[in-house]
Amino acid sequence: MGKRIARSIVEFSNAPAIVGQAAVAGKIEGEGPLAGKFSEVFLDEHIGQPTWEKAETALQAAAITHAMTAANCTADEIDLHIGGDLMNQCTATGFALRDENIPFAGVYAACASFALGLALGASLVDGGLSQVSCCGSSHFCAAEKQFRYPLELGVQPTPTAQRTATAAGAVVLAHGNAATPQPRITRAIFGNVIDMGVTDPSEMGAAMAPAAWDTLRRFLQDTNTIPTDYDLILTGDLSKIGTQLLHELARQQAGYDLAHIHSDCGLMLYDTVAQDVGMGGSGVGCSAAVLCAEILPRMLSGELHRVLFIGTGALLSAISPLQGESIPAVAHGVLIEM
Amino acid sequence: MGKRIARSIVEFSNAPAIVGQAAVAGKIEGEGPLAGKFSEVFLDEHIGQPTWEKAETALQAAAITHAMTAANCTADEIDLHIGGDLMNQCTATGFALRDENIPFAGVYAACASFALGLALGASLVDGGLSQVSCCGSSHFCAAEKQFRYPLELGVQPTPTAQRTATAAGAVVLAHGNAATPQPRITRAIFGNVIDMGVTDPSEMGAAMAPAAWDTLRRFLQDTNTIPTDYDLILTGDLSKIGTQLLHELARQQAGYDLAHIHSDCGLMLYDTVAQDVGMGGSGVGCSAAVLCAEILPRMLSGELHRVLFIGTGALLSAISPLQGESIPAVAHGVLIEM
Repeated sequence: MGKRIARSIVEFSNAPAIVGQAAVAGKIEGEGPLAGKFSEVFLDEHIGQPTWEKAETALQAAAITHAMTAANCTADEIDLHIGGDLMNQCTATGFALRDENIPFAGVYAACASFALGLALGASLVDGGLSQVSCCGSSHFCAAEKQFRYPLELGVQPTPTAQRTATAAGAVVLAHGNAATPQPRITRAIFGNVIDMGVTDPSEMGAAMAPAAWDTLRRFLQDTNTIPTDYDLILTGDLSKIGTQLLHELARQQAGYDLAHIHSDCGLMLYDTVAQDVGMGGSGVGCSAAVLCAEILPRMLSGELHRVLFIGTGALLSAISPLQGESIPAVAHGVLIEM
Repeated sequence: MGKRIARSIVEFSNAPAIVGQAAVAGKIEGEGPLAGKFSEVFLDEHIGQPTWEKAETALQAAAITHAMTAANCTADEIDLHIGGDLMNQCTATGFALRDENIPFAGVYAACASFALGLALGASLVDGGLSQVSCCGSSHFCAAEKQFRYPLELGVQPTPTAQRTATAAGAVVLAHGNAATPQPRITRAIFGNVIDMGVTDPSEMGAAMAPAAWDTLRRFLQDTNTIPTDYDLILTGDLSKIGTQLLHELARQQAGYDLAHIHSDCGLMLYDTVAQDVGMGGSGVGCSAAVLCAEILPRMLSGELHRVLFIGTGALLSAISPLQGESIPAVAHGVLIEM
């Protein structure tokens, strides 16, 4: 049985292993700094589908299939799939599972949905299930259509906007093999809803940074660790402004310098100088793809040993800012160790 | 540690107790067969809020507060809140938690979100967390606006439509007190995505019945039990047509007569003869409120001992039927025993 080591923080006694992972991406993502690290890159943003929504479903189905191949397992051997996306009513995920015979639990924590899925999935594998798959996806065109403007309108993004990634990442969690070095999820933390009053839906980084700090601060304090105890603290996705704010909060409130220990998935998926992506990447698929395409392979190669992955999500809808609501945010985390 | 007894079915060794529950409802729900059993009934569908979306948030906040009072605990003592609703981006739930200091995990399984929350919550309490709250809500006016037509348009519902309940139900799960008889969640099952090709979004009962049967069939088979081993098999929400189809499937495929052992929350919340509610109730709040206002009290009074609760959800969005998609459905279940 997992052990509760503090409020909403669990330590797994049989730390679940990540036995397979895969990431797929769209054209622009495939041309960025992670070029060559994806299992599949779709040059056509439609991914052979008639609508953006169906394209995201196809993206997610591809990521799941590649992850199962990497884990050397079939759909029948998966006890539960945990997935999430930004589409209304979680359809990218639900529809992706329609042709597979896999029990399915949908989660929602905006861009932190993949981290939430990992935290819940690890809890369930530690708690008895045999193999659990987790996936997160987003699609630039589907998100623009749903949350902002139809692409055909050619609306200019605001200077603080992030680019929703066309990408998906998936892992298979299992009890693993004690004889083989595998990345294992050893701890999980569930985050508080934090709302500091940001009302501009183009200021996601600013809305989410306080939630990222709240989760990081609690985790460090309650596990009695400091930032340099980790090889990497990885957030997803604060991008430029949110990263600056997180570093500022850490310095002011705890005297920590995160500059050399922290990276953000939103700044890793794209080359924010050469590519036209605003403040960096966002979307469930961004952190899912960066973790699966870049970070887990670096752990497997022995370069990284202890990674604290904290997903960040802005819990708004397309209409809540129009009703005068500010933007609540949440950040969920998992500690991954070799 | 929980034990996996079959694919996606877990048996809890330290079966989590439901240490407090509460349900709140709107006016029509408060005048139905469960009159007098709610912690609070809101006669004004606006619940003092300027928008339907904020009204649902208020409804959910009320249910959580009443459940914590019933469990004799404060927000600070909750390790994690698991909640879900039908609103885009799960905002009814996320916003309800904004003023509380409670870690929050959003789930989505349409009208099965409360059952999914119970299954995950029980897994986490069994796996080490101390107290976990679960809530599910829906609001008639908010759902009509989002999924169908604005109320002001006065559009006639189709003959097969169900009424989305204005209601919320919440529970607090904890390790419980061995000396006191308390309802305990002893097993959980996660459901497959089942799509039999129904394309009419007014035919939710027909879309969900096969998913309900798939989960019920697997649970009975894999736990080596038959329907009469339970005092009650409770689904939510199939309503009239879905209930008929479930009974038909059970008779045809396994020879079971569910007539006297099965009830559906959609047929319990309303008087479907005297009240103008179409085929019965639906919405996350329907099954959540019926379980909390009616079923758990009947368990506590000694009338019911073993209840198999299976939530059913239709995984469509407002636009997926317009894009020619059929309606996938999912059903998650928990076994509750005194």
